[in-house]
Amino acid sequence: MSEDVRPGLQDVVVARTEVATLDLERERIVVRGYDLLELARTVRYPDVAHLLLRGHLPSPEEQAAFCARLGDLAGLPDGVVDVLRRLPAGTAPMDALRTGISLLAGFEDPGVLKDPSVEAAEAMLLRILARAPALTAAAYRALHAEPVLEPNPGLGFAGSFLWMIHGRPPAPEVERVFDRILTCYSEHELAASTFAARVASSTLADPYAAVVAAAATLKGPLHGGANEEAARMFVRIRMAGGEAAAEPYVLERLARGERIAGFGHRVYMRRPDPRAVLLREDLDGFAERDPDAAVLVRCYDRVVETMAREKGLHPNADLPIGLLLHLMGIPVGLMTPIFLCARIAGLGAHVLEQRADNRLIRPRARYEGPTDLRPPEGFTPSRC
Amino acid sequence: MSEDVRPGLQDVVVARTEVATLDLERERIVVRGYDLLELARTVRYPDVAHLLLRGHLPSPEEQAAFCARLGDLAGLPDGVVDVLRRLPAGTAPMDALRTGISLLAGFEDPGVLKDPSVEAAEAMLLRILARAPALTAAAYRALHAEPVLEPNPGLGFAGSFLWMIHGRPPAPEVERVFDRILTCYSEHELAASTFAARVASSTLADPYAAVVAAAATLKGPLHGGANEEAARMFVRIRMAGGEAAAEPYVLERLARGERIAGFGHRVYMRRPDPRAVLLREDLDGFAERDPDAAVLVRCYDRVVETMAREKGLHPNADLPIGLLLHLMGIPVGLMTPIFLCARIAGLGAHVLEQRADNRLIRPRARYEGPTDLRPPEGFTPSRC
Repeated sequence: MSEDVRPGLQDVVVARTEVATLDLERERIVVRGYDLLELARTVRYPDVAHLLLRGHLPSPEEQAAFCARLGDLAGLPDGVVDVLRRLPAGTAPMDALRTGISLLAGFEDPGVLKDPSVEAAEAMLLRILARAPALTAAAYRALHAEPVLEPNPGLGFAGSFLWMIHGRPPAPEVERVFDRILTCYSEHELAASTFAARVASSTLADPYAAVVAAAATLKGPLHGGANEEAARMFVRIRMAGGEAAAEPYVLERLARGERIAGFGHRVYMRRPDPRAVLLREDLDGFAERDPDAAVLVRCYDRVVETMAREKGLHPNADLPIGLLLHLMGIPVGLMTPIFLCARIAGLGAHVLEQRADNRLIRPRARYEGPTDLRPPEGFTPSRC
Repeated sequence: MSEDVRPGLQDVVVARTEVATLDLERERIVVRGYDLLELARTVRYPDVAHLLLRGHLPSPEEQAAFCARLGDLAGLPDGVVDVLRRLPAGTAPMDALRTGISLLAGFEDPGVLKDPSVEAAEAMLLRILARAPALTAAAYRALHAEPVLEPNPGLGFAGSFLWMIHGRPPAPEVERVFDRILTCYSEHELAASTFAARVASSTLADPYAAVVAAAATLKGPLHGGANEEAARMFVRIRMAGGEAAAEPYVLERLARGERIAGFGHRVYMRRPDPRAVLLREDLDGFAERDPDAAVLVRCYDRVVETMAREKGLHPNADLPIGLLLHLMGIPVGLMTPIFLCARIAGLGAHVLEQRADNRLIRPRARYEGPTDLRPPEGFTPSRC
């Protein structure tokens, strides 16, 4: 306890991992040995989820089995939608997803739920991963008193997800970008939400508990909530006049000392986030197809230029993803839930690793208050 | 990143705090300057909750106002019980409580939910604290298809809690011990669940998210789940023959390499937990009133002796609390939820502290896997 206080645990190394690392020298996100951006370009999200949870890219036979399993498990157990329909109408979709994942634990076999093995955890994580899109879409639709749609596994993981949100099959180019966003969000080493999942797992709590802790943590505007804030910012800039309004908007907020969501990162600090570099390319496709999108993409570039000049900060993944999801017609409230759905693969891999070599995560605090107070003479205890 | 790996964050100091400290030299738990055990003996849980959340013991006027507020807020919003009744019957009460707290976020004013101020957080934490007992009891009763009871604030916080569980007012001596258990569980520095709450809060997620993350983390058998395991152990020993069966039971489990819940603690290591010392005294009252309880208390003493001799380990708070709650007729599944209800005051104080001087909690991991893998030539992406 004679040590330095490490608020934020900045640069404190809390685990050995074979899941991922942020290689700042080479500006790469390495996931189980592969460059995440190369994966985003060349394979699909279910391949990445298999890589994360099972440690290797799937063989063709494994691909077929993994896809079939994701499809078989994609539907929600009876009664879940009934609960979602009873959530207060003002519930944030991210809170509804958290409640829904917590609820799913009750549908698990109690013996499996308590099974401390890595195998049991992997099976549960696969069920959570497979069901999260249906839960996300159903929660949103239930909160808006719209009919809830069954998954459509024939459209693939990303395609079925968009189907359940929009009620129509996505255009192939949109589906491809959405799949790439899922991969970009799939894993990012010890982000606060993944760390929270490891903290929960370290008490030997089950994987539902771990994912719920992650969902709770991902909500904050300093973390997953940033993509929603980024999307809202672009909408505001367009309403304020479009491209010409972008620089004044940023300058005004900076002058008020406000944070601009989607910029900077604890680990990358002042380097570009490689995911943002890749995803900026995807914005061009939308701009080419749609003049209204082109306006928003120009706003994006002006915001990025202004932040680089004024603050020396580069965009992180949440900035382009917030705009891309908006251009796909995804409601803002679903953006952080989509982040969580994608991240279940990565944080699940961390949960498995924590389980395989567990140690309770229990730090200390340095006490800076008084130590010898006593209740005043004649203190009468409260009567409640 | 050249640093040592600190798995479990053992002895890593992650925060400055004025909430509490574990003073190992003097074998005291210091809460805002006061000895927690003295508080357990001399004041009541609502006084301790006020001390934790507001920084000082209440004046008589503050006591009256705080009690009135806890009473006014104790009921559940319309619709909550309706959701609880729809949880799958096999849901663990701890999972039902987690789902319920997550659900309560949807009843909060959305503007308040997003308000990053310490004042807004304190108001929300007070609502969560006040409602947690009703949520706990209602979840249990709903899962067992029993009628749900309204709070009875005239019986006090502890008394109303027992009323909602049992459907009758508690005997005064039982109510007094239950109140003392709540105080003993109220705060314990950076336990894993409290740390999880701080991790969630550090993203600026709201207090409901923080308490949900804590609930998820508290569930594990290495943390809050231990009181339930302890209670089950004493029931098993009694069924195996009572006092004479205690030592063989422990020796047999140790020989199989199994952990005995309720012993040892990351921080106390091989010293007695002062809460366990105090609460052992309360067991005597039950033993005097009830011969069946006396048998269980003798089992308790034999287990403690055996563990001290064989492993040099002392009981932590979960061992006597598991038995005390069992002797009060509390169902085993409610023991960890009761722990959480009590701890909301302490973790809430940490959430307020985190908010007042926030820094995103985001550690690093040391990567020990390959770095330059590429998908095999001709890899065909998955078709889902």
